[in-house]
Amino acid sequence: MTFDAVVEVRLRPGIADPQGATIERALPALGFDGVGGVQVGKSIRFTVEAADEAAARSLVDDLCHRFLTNPVIEDSVVTLTAAAVA
Amino acid sequence: MTFDAVVEVRLRPGIADPQGATIERALPALGFDGVGGVQVGKSIRFTVEAADEAAARSLVDDLCHRFLTNPVIEDSVVTLTAAAVA
Repeated sequence: MTFDAVVEVRLRPGIADPQGATIERALPALGFDGVGGVQVGKSIRFTVEAADEAAARSLVDDLCHRFLTNPVIEDSVVTLTAAAVA
Repeated sequence: MTFDAVVEVRLRPGIADPQGATIERALPALGFDGVGGVQVGKSIRFTVEAADEAAARSLVDDLCHRFLTNPVIEDSVVTLTAAAVA
């Protein structure tokens, strides 16, 4: 079976987020008020071939921990959906 | 009212994605098979103060088009949820 995976990688709470801070500082000068708490992360999409959803989830979790994120400073949230059959 | 916004920024179809291609090439050597179609985007989270959901959505859409994305090469998907009242 094929699954669509979306991995959202976010900085852990307390880790400095200079990209987010820069966006937040720039917004009032550009006329956007009322925006706060800006956090910038990554979003990684891919397809996974696996026997079932449990196998796909275990593969994606392993991939996240070993390769896509730095677990010291980043958290990841995995969303898996069965791909539409072509 | 306060809303939590998540903006997912993705490259448009057909735009070269060297980050995604590099991840995809590296995976078989690391023992991950069956993974394909890797696309790397950004995920930007923030809170918005607005009178109602329509006002918040229009502010976030404007922000996306003018500031957070390059509409020539990137698409964005906005998800808005009312923030839990503290």
